[in-house]
Amino acid sequence: MEQPAGTRGQHEASSYFSRDFNMMPAWKKLGELARAPYDLTAPGALSSARIRSYRVHAAGFDLLYSTQRVDEPVLAALQGLAEESGAVAQFLLMKKGAVLNRIEGYASEERQVLHTACRDIFAPVCPAPEASAQAKGELEKLADFLTALETGEIVNAAGEPFTDLVQVGIGGSDLGPRALYLALAAYKMPGRRVHFISNVDPDDAAATLSGLDLAKTLVNVVSKSGSTLETLTNEELVRKAFAEAGLEPSRHFLAVTGKGSPMDNPARYLRSFYMFDSIGGRYSATSMVGAVMLGFGLGYTQLLEILRGAQAMDLAAEEQDIRRNPPLLLALLGIWNHNFLGCETLAILPYSQALVRFAAHLQQCDMESNGKSVTRQGKPLAWESGPIIWGEPGTNGQHAFYQLIHQGTTIVPAEFIGFRTSQYGRDLLIEQTTSQEKLVANLLAQVLALATGQADENPNRCFAGNRPSTVLLADRLTPYAMGALLALYEAKVVFQGFIWNINSFDQEGVQLGKKLATRLLAHYAGLRQDPGYSGETSDDAGWALLGAAGVLAKERSD
Amino acid sequence: MEQPAGTRGQHEASSYFSRDFNMMPAWKKLGELARAPYDLTAPGALSSARIRSYRVHAAGFDLLYSTQRVDEPVLAALQGLAEESGAVAQFLLMKKGAVLNRIEGYASEERQVLHTACRDIFAPVCPAPEASAQAKGELEKLADFLTALETGEIVNAAGEPFTDLVQVGIGGSDLGPRALYLALAAYKMPGRRVHFISNVDPDDAAATLSGLDLAKTLVNVVSKSGSTLETLTNEELVRKAFAEAGLEPSRHFLAVTGKGSPMDNPARYLRSFYMFDSIGGRYSATSMVGAVMLGFGLGYTQLLEILRGAQAMDLAAEEQDIRRNPPLLLALLGIWNHNFLGCETLAILPYSQALVRFAAHLQQCDMESNGKSVTRQGKPLAWESGPIIWGEPGTNGQHAFYQLIHQGTTIVPAEFIGFRTSQYGRDLLIEQTTSQEKLVANLLAQVLALATGQADENPNRCFAGNRPSTVLLADRLTPYAMGALLALYEAKVVFQGFIWNINSFDQEGVQLGKKLATRLLAHYAGLRQDPGYSGETSDDAGWALLGAAGVLAKERSD
Repeated sequence: MEQPAGTRGQHEASSYFSRDFNMMPAWKKLGELARAPYDLTAPGALSSARIRSYRVHAAGFDLLYSTQRVDEPVLAALQGLAEESGAVAQFLLMKKGAVLNRIEGYASEERQVLHTACRDIFAPVCPAPEASAQAKGELEKLADFLTALETGEIVNAAGEPFTDLVQVGIGGSDLGPRALYLALAAYKMPGRRVHFISNVDPDDAAATLSGLDLAKTLVNVVSKSGSTLETLTNEELVRKAFAEAGLEPSRHFLAVTGKGSPMDNPARYLRSFYMFDSIGGRYSATSMVGAVMLGFGLGYTQLLEILRGAQAMDLAAEEQDIRRNPPLLLALLGIWNHNFLGCETLAILPYSQALVRFAAHLQQCDMESNGKSVTRQGKPLAWESGPIIWGEPGTNGQHAFYQLIHQGTTIVPAEFIGFRTSQYGRDLLIEQTTSQEKLVANLLAQVLALATGQADENPNRCFAGNRPSTVLLADRLTPYAMGALLALYEAKVVFQGFIWNINSFDQEGVQLGKKLATRLLAHYAGLRQDPGYSGETSDDAGWALLGAAGVLAKERSD
Repeated sequence: MEQPAGTRGQHEASSYFSRDFNMMPAWKKLGELARAPYDLTAPGALSSARIRSYRVHAAGFDLLYSTQRVDEPVLAALQGLAEESGAVAQFLLMKKGAVLNRIEGYASEERQVLHTACRDIFAPVCPAPEASAQAKGELEKLADFLTALETGEIVNAAGEPFTDLVQVGIGGSDLGPRALYLALAAYKMPGRRVHFISNVDPDDAAATLSGLDLAKTLVNVVSKSGSTLETLTNEELVRKAFAEAGLEPSRHFLAVTGKGSPMDNPARYLRSFYMFDSIGGRYSATSMVGAVMLGFGLGYTQLLEILRGAQAMDLAAEEQDIRRNPPLLLALLGIWNHNFLGCETLAILPYSQALVRFAAHLQQCDMESNGKSVTRQGKPLAWESGPIIWGEPGTNGQHAFYQLIHQGTTIVPAEFIGFRTSQYGRDLLIEQTTSQEKLVANLLAQVLALATGQADENPNRCFAGNRPSTVLLADRLTPYAMGALLALYEAKVVFQGFIWNINSFDQEGVQLGKKLATRLLAHYAGLRQDPGYSGETSDDAGWALLGAAGVLAKERSD
């Protein structure tokens, strides 16, 4: 295990790991300030001076926050909150390999949190040299494999090159990688395509496989534990399809898994790549979990660009000054809206169709990390933890749910994401503006409309305003920008977890459902083996629910 | 305009249009009952008798609600609420053509609401014969067109049949139709494919067109007003691509638009189909807005099946007894959770990958309908209107945001949707259960886990329970079932709007953003024409925001 360099520094900083949010002076201060938050609808409230100065820049992104309900006193208190919670100090310890995935005094995962090490391979001095060396080793294995595919050293049984890759994985092995691939499809290598199978729904696999030339298809099976039910089931389904097509799976299947897992069996796979315990699923897009698929689809050079962008943002996240640290500022603005202004949700609104699945990735990254009820000392939280994350690309959303954002009875803080130029560059001047200009103008118009509102004699045409939002803007959605954006949100989530004093790296909340599903499946299996089987006495509610759902009767009549 | 048959009945029922939610006796009663809602975690609370009896069936769907925090007194009060608000009476008036899209005493759309008329073509007696006749007329035009495509009467310039159709539309012309097509892709006509372009993002169109054989492609442009900015821009982009490929657009382009709209120009289109003022965009999936594309992709017979399923559910929605009316019961359970138990959001969790975009459709259908702040008399609401709708298919979500649903500090009511058998029927027995059984078992396990929770000595492994959910189950996701599901949610949304006394059929909240976007675009155009242009004096905030976003500087340096 990685040993952090400055042990003395670590000891001091680790005292932050048990500071309760509501015990910090900034918590009290912010509570007072929240009684009269900045009024964005007041005349002159949104001055050009404010708009121009409430702006941070890092790793290619501008963050504009003049349309948040903050002013100098609130920003000072948020800076205080960052310092009192030691948010950046904890982030630095994380990067160095501190065991942050734990609950003090209780059985827990007891793991380091080192997704940043995958990107720190570019850093002059690696904070966690061992983990970065591991990441580099896997990257080099991947580079060799990709070269062999390109030179024709690795081909199918008929001597043809592989054109397609199907990623089989779920959760972090699906959402982040898929969001990245869709975001960067414009940078695809010619003749290469990537597909995804995630759901245990058999229709998901069937729909994906129909229309593929399996002979030219690689299958990348991704599961850290090597025992994820959905992934193993889908792997079997896909292996069966290959066998039926007369193809030898071990010439087509790749594995990304933990060393020593049940899937770590080179005989069954053309190549195996490793993932490590210090990288949680929802933070694993820049590990081999995303890299193998992205390397195949976009090429190795573009893959490195993603990592470079992420590393640049990881570096910006080390700034102590919140006005120079976009992820930290975004985290604090989120806390202001959620804990102090009482907003339950956060909308992620990318004005880019390519980011169509980015909100789905963030739903996992954020909600699985921070949807918690106990502190890192196992005490019940006396404050709200993570918000509900949702959203769809604009301008589509404008024609859907924006009505509620503008005029509903619930305030929805929003994070808008935009780009100054398009990816494909195919655009058209209509009425003196391009489509991309229309896109950006719409984004900024929404931000203004939400903030300032509008009075009207017709009550149905009134807009109350004071609905807070942030804008994130970069020049273009390149692999570098995508890497930076990914890392920005990863760091934001982690900062919020530090401040709330929760463990953002475990997911005990998914266990009960798994346990009960196993119990219900035993009833199916029981019935299959013995038509007289009944689960009534051992599991009254479960058995009744299966009965009420009509699935057992169905089963019997089959 | 349609004249409702029983004018006297209408007069009585229309008194419901101005009843305020918080003035009804049931409102007070429910508020009292909400102080001690049913405790699902109490021993025996989830008895098999409760599970089996808290179930409603209609139009092929079972609705199970034993895991909601309701008991007999709450259900009686909800029945009272339905009656006091005249929810069903208003629904019947709607179907007959009452002018429900209005705000009393203020300028408003003043329209009927007759999406149900598209399905009432199967009813022995049409409640709104004129609108149903219109719908039937358009359906017959469509049937003729589809036949001509199949017989080879209509072909491309090279005499080949059309294989692909691109739907160009946004909002209701995209979300509902797309959700339906993806849900039913398993029923596709061989050799036919459908694609969608919606976003003004030029990359959206570019990504869709790349890889299409335009010579064999139809383009269906859908806009009621014929003036939707995104749709017209995309139509121009696509027409240009056709022209560049040497193809005559009028042999390829179809129009779905309002009579007399700027798009109602037969010379530019191969065929034109009409939509009517009485059908709002978000309720238009079963009108020509969805029908042309679905008819092409799935065939006319399957299209009629969708309409038949919807009509069956529309009929169930007429039941006065909430225990026989799934949409009404779902509406009331939603109101119980939202207005009385204080939950801001609602998760839609289909355990079917095919329903991947159904939640996105509901975001529009529900949030654009009920995200309102004034009553139908223009008074500010003193109660919460529509919730925030979000969700993703399971089991994927289990590996993403379910952590927060189980252990977060916010209660998220959920509606689970499942099917007893798969669409494709390709499935595999692994450990004595099929994938579809795993899918349904997981769905029901989540429902149980959320309701009952679990105690544990490790505080991080505790589940508080009492998190309410509903299950909707049908045999299989067929066109009929999809139609029923669509209509179920349309009716649910409408019922909630009736009870909250809001106009669920307008969308004034999207106007301000449009207005401001036009203002910002004028700055772009101004700069393009004159590099010395400045919008500073006329629009201080807008000009500053463009400057801070770096888009004007960019523009200048281009």
